[in-house]
Amino acid sequence: MTANDTSGLTLYELAGADPELRFSPYCWRVRMALAHKGVEVEHVPVRFTEKEKIAFSGQRLVPVLRDGDRIVTDSWRIALHLEERFPEPSLFGDPATIPLTQFVSAWADTTAMYLLKVILLDIYNALDESDREYFRSSREKRFGVRLEAFVADKEMHLAGFQKALQPLRAILTDRDFVAGDTPTYADYCAFGMFMWARGVSNTLLIPPDDPLFAWHEHLLDAFDGLARKAPRHR
Amino acid sequence: MTANDTSGLTLYELAGADPELRFSPYCWRVRMALAHKGVEVEHVPVRFTEKEKIAFSGQRLVPVLRDGDRIVTDSWRIALHLEERFPEPSLFGDPATIPLTQFVSAWADTTAMYLLKVILLDIYNALDESDREYFRSSREKRFGVRLEAFVADKEMHLAGFQKALQPLRAILTDRDFVAGDTPTYADYCAFGMFMWARGVSNTLLIPPDDPLFAWHEHLLDAFDGLARKAPRHR
Repeated sequence: MTANDTSGLTLYELAGADPELRFSPYCWRVRMALAHKGVEVEHVPVRFTEKEKIAFSGQRLVPVLRDGDRIVTDSWRIALHLEERFPEPSLFGDPATIPLTQFVSAWADTTAMYLLKVILLDIYNALDESDREYFRSSREKRFGVRLEAFVADKEMHLAGFQKALQPLRAILTDRDFVAGDTPTYADYCAFGMFMWARGVSNTLLIPPDDPLFAWHEHLLDAFDGLARKAPRHR
Repeated sequence: MTANDTSGLTLYELAGADPELRFSPYCWRVRMALAHKGVEVEHVPVRFTEKEKIAFSGQRLVPVLRDGDRIVTDSWRIALHLEERFPEPSLFGDPATIPLTQFVSAWADTTAMYLLKVILLDIYNALDESDREYFRSSREKRFGVRLEAFVADKEMHLAGFQKALQPLRAILTDRDFVAGDTPTYADYCAFGMFMWARGVSNTLLIPPDDPLFAWHEHLLDAFDGLARKAPRHR
């Protein structure tokens, strides 16, 4: 399928050294939402040092969705836009769940920050040479330590991430998906984190005896294996 | 109002040295839920070393609700029971939100564990003499350090708790309550944590410039100031 066969929408996504490597957890939320809606879009890779590609959006963060004259930024606002533009099948199941789905989205934002410390050096290694200096200096400034220091404390950071996952684990002990029997945007918010790690890292986050395992496998296989087939950094 | 004027329900709650000091975050979820429903119950204080008072429930944790022949344990199951037994006003606003409210409940369970490390010694100091040895030995065994060690690292634990609160803060920047314009059980789950701290500790958790401040004040004042008037340890 070429871009001309698509809905006319364009999604700007973070890319690695391999331009087909898409690892942003926020972009993965949107990828899964688009697949849920059955909407094809043109995908444009954007590296950290290629922010001029999204200058038209008036800000510097991906994902950015261009839908005709509408420019939508922020994964949550993009999800709401897709729900309005392509109502069926609903991303939320029931409109009443939208506010609490935003809570799950915000929870996944916070929890991703625990995971970041586990995979920070893996992300660095998956980046194009042109992005590495920017990534190292900006992250070392933010955290006040060398990237390599995160690897030294990897077990501690992994334990912190596993603890932060507890609400998801508690829910998925009771049922198959976050909001019920079928996946909704709440699942894609949580799943985006794991696709971030999967794209760049070999760290085992979900062992087979984890209550998250079946859920994660299901989402890897969803939409004809969209997530499972996605390129990973080697 | 005497016990005879009530609904006939009895709630068994954790108590401090002052039997009127009720500080369990899980019991506070139920207290707020009962007030939301406008249901009066008889309250029975249970200290850590008085577990024989709830032996009839077949387990050792408060809260326990006795409703005629029905014995309901676990704050989440008690909330569902109250919703079925007293449908109006709904604790959830819309039945479609119940699964995601359970996620917020699970999130509050996890987040309470970050707060526990901030107020552990304050809890100890608020307990009856008869409970202190049990509490110290069980918690020191669980954490592998003396209770006093938590005070030494209080700033670190407080920072961890503040970070874990981020999803709540993000949501309450956008609207007045977790699920919309009015309080629901999702709010009471989060608020229960703050009532735990308020009962035993002087630690400032929510400064006036925090997005949580107005939300917290509103819930302190709700139901004729039920939470604000509740006894605190001095």
